[in-house]
Amino acid sequence: MGHTYRHFFERPLFLVRGEGVWLYDDQGTRYLDCYNNVPSVGHCHPDVVEALSTQASTLNTHTRYLHDAIIEYAEMLAGRLPGELSVCTFVCTGTEANDLAYRMARSVTGNTGAIVTSGAYHGNSTLVSELSPDNDTVRTGLDFVVEVEPPYTYRSVFPDDQPETESAYAGLVDDAIEQLRSRGVLPAMMMIDGIYDAKGILTPGATYLQQVYEKVRAAGGLIIADEVQSGLCRLGDHYWGFEDSGVVPDIVTMGKPMGAGHPLAIVVTTPQIASEFAKKAHYFNTFGGNPVSASVGKAVLEVVEREDILANVKRTGEHFKKGLEALADKHELIGDVRGKGLFLGVELVENRSDKKPAKAIAANIVEKMRESGVLISTTGQFDNVLKFRPPLVFAREHADLALERLDQSIDAVGQR
Amino acid sequence: MGHTYRHFFERPLFLVRGEGVWLYDDQGTRYLDCYNNVPSVGHCHPDVVEALSTQASTLNTHTRYLHDAIIEYAEMLAGRLPGELSVCTFVCTGTEANDLAYRMARSVTGNTGAIVTSGAYHGNSTLVSELSPDNDTVRTGLDFVVEVEPPYTYRSVFPDDQPETESAYAGLVDDAIEQLRSRGVLPAMMMIDGIYDAKGILTPGATYLQQVYEKVRAAGGLIIADEVQSGLCRLGDHYWGFEDSGVVPDIVTMGKPMGAGHPLAIVVTTPQIASEFAKKAHYFNTFGGNPVSASVGKAVLEVVEREDILANVKRTGEHFKKGLEALADKHELIGDVRGKGLFLGVELVENRSDKKPAKAIAANIVEKMRESGVLISTTGQFDNVLKFRPPLVFAREHADLALERLDQSIDAVGQR
Repeated sequence: MGHTYRHFFERPLFLVRGEGVWLYDDQGTRYLDCYNNVPSVGHCHPDVVEALSTQASTLNTHTRYLHDAIIEYAEMLAGRLPGELSVCTFVCTGTEANDLAYRMARSVTGNTGAIVTSGAYHGNSTLVSELSPDNDTVRTGLDFVVEVEPPYTYRSVFPDDQPETESAYAGLVDDAIEQLRSRGVLPAMMMIDGIYDAKGILTPGATYLQQVYEKVRAAGGLIIADEVQSGLCRLGDHYWGFEDSGVVPDIVTMGKPMGAGHPLAIVVTTPQIASEFAKKAHYFNTFGGNPVSASVGKAVLEVVEREDILANVKRTGEHFKKGLEALADKHELIGDVRGKGLFLGVELVENRSDKKPAKAIAANIVEKMRESGVLISTTGQFDNVLKFRPPLVFAREHADLALERLDQSIDAVGQR
Repeated sequence: MGHTYRHFFERPLFLVRGEGVWLYDDQGTRYLDCYNNVPSVGHCHPDVVEALSTQASTLNTHTRYLHDAIIEYAEMLAGRLPGELSVCTFVCTGTEANDLAYRMARSVTGNTGAIVTSGAYHGNSTLVSELSPDNDTVRTGLDFVVEVEPPYTYRSVFPDDQPETESAYAGLVDDAIEQLRSRGVLPAMMMIDGIYDAKGILTPGATYLQQVYEKVRAAGGLIIADEVQSGLCRLGDHYWGFEDSGVVPDIVTMGKPMGAGHPLAIVVTTPQIASEFAKKAHYFNTFGGNPVSASVGKAVLEVVEREDILANVKRTGEHFKKGLEALADKHELIGDVRGKGLFLGVELVENRSDKKPAKAIAANIVEKMRESGVLISTTGQFDNVLKFRPPLVFAREHADLALERLDQSIDAVGQR
């Protein structure tokens, strides 16, 4: 196994079975999964397994032959997207989706510049790594990439006398465009997460996004909404994160949750962009959109509708967040509670006055939670934000259990 | 659906079922599959479907938890590779594999240069597209990529007075290295296919590869063997194409056939390279090597062993090639028959003296073959090479049927 593999937890988990929001290890111990977003409709959902098995035993070819499933799936996706976002290209991973989206943007605009969020993670291809400041070791003086700080109201990036407004953060995009220009580069696109995970679970606001969209477009760039994390009802109000702000991107990328574990990702764009791109490039993805992937994607969307996942995320997410806010009232350790839907962050600080990140304590709590049967992780630039991002079938009783165990774990590590 | 999608055939095939070497359309018509390499052990092999279904209904997480299947699969792969090639990193597609392999080479050598074969196709990511001269529309004056002509004995690239030797072709790599140097770039790697598909199904010889490996390494570069097409017994003598030449690359990439339709690809390298890379980069692939993919990969290797696929490819491939050579004796249209194992090419020419590529006739024959129930395609820089690359369970009787229909199709398009 490659030396870049890393396991979670000091004693890695040896899992043997998954069902709904539960994972079971080789000793029969049951864990509440508050971490995994890939099994969106729950671990091993029987309808998804059935669609996978049935199609795999019938036919599995590729998009160079006709097949009903891929057309039906594309139509289902287009029907759940606003504006002109209706043309789908199917790939296997979020990395491939973001890579292709950037390639489309470069091809269509004729520009090469990329504006990304500081600390963002958009994937692991060589190019997408370069667009991912979170992968700091890969980048070596790329003149076409520029970073902007995302809105982080808990820790302002501005001097004390400057107001912490969404417009002020949007103004950083002007600086980024200017920075590219000074290197002789124009922006092909800005890639924007529906929620900034790696930066510590920050949600961009409507005013911010509206202004940023305008600025990038005025400079000749497209907007790519990276919905690999925030898509498929994760944030509770809409299917896709950007919809919360009333904006419509030029290209949307979808990944992790779409196949509930099966490698399935999608790039959706407008007919105009798709047709411009096709004039300049050809693209074929061997596995992308094969009959099995398409059938799995359809099954996931059907489960999302039938089980009214969006309403569940909204309901459970609000209850969960209220519970976390109540814990913040009780525990000094909790500096901030944020996020939306079932993507919640709890920022831990050594004290609330200077907000010193409590990284070691956060790591301890993750281990304590695991010992008490609840799986979470940390995120953020200081690794001090507890991340709660469970399967979307997470219910009120699961939230209550996670809250109870978090309360106990904070006590157990000797914190107030 | 994206505008870059292209269907095979004038009237696209509407397939509904696959089994072994057979595909069935919505009218119940049966087609002999002489084209698809992805369903390596045959369409919908019951053992592979069983492994997929069982694991998908039990657990599907990722490599940050422990799981037996991934370790067992990595050990099986390492046991089937020569030398120090023993460290596996799991990804989802051949593109991801080649992209990661280049990133490893760049990271470990400290160089950026890439030597690739003229006309090669290594994938579809932005970067890998740039390494793929077959994707000509993407490339825009990249100073770190240089192309070399592969050995093509039927159409020499050398002047008439220069001998057409493997060493002469290997010498082109010296020129390539010099070309990079003149731009201030040193080679990170040369990426070499086990068989050159897009160029017209050319097989690099042992002397050629041995000399090329030496030259690239002497210049500080690594050798990446792209076994996405030629791997898993495709060429009939060994598991991997490079083994036919007694060479051992630094990095091997595997893709298409490994999961028999499931998105599974692998990068294998030496402990030394893996450890150097891990010092400089981190890498995680959400779906790569998950328990389902690993179980499918294992099942495919088990079928390959149990059904003695290697011997079948050797036996059927030799019989098939002899049959094609017999047709070449009969039909003037056939200029050259080449390839190995179950990867065979038939180059069509308007006449044998000036070897003018018979592109339109080749396209007609592909359509005629389809009408007669046999699926093939064309390849090569002039699109005049008929490609025979069936599932590896292709038997003598299937070869005989394909030969009979080819004979008839040549007659049917009015050719001698």
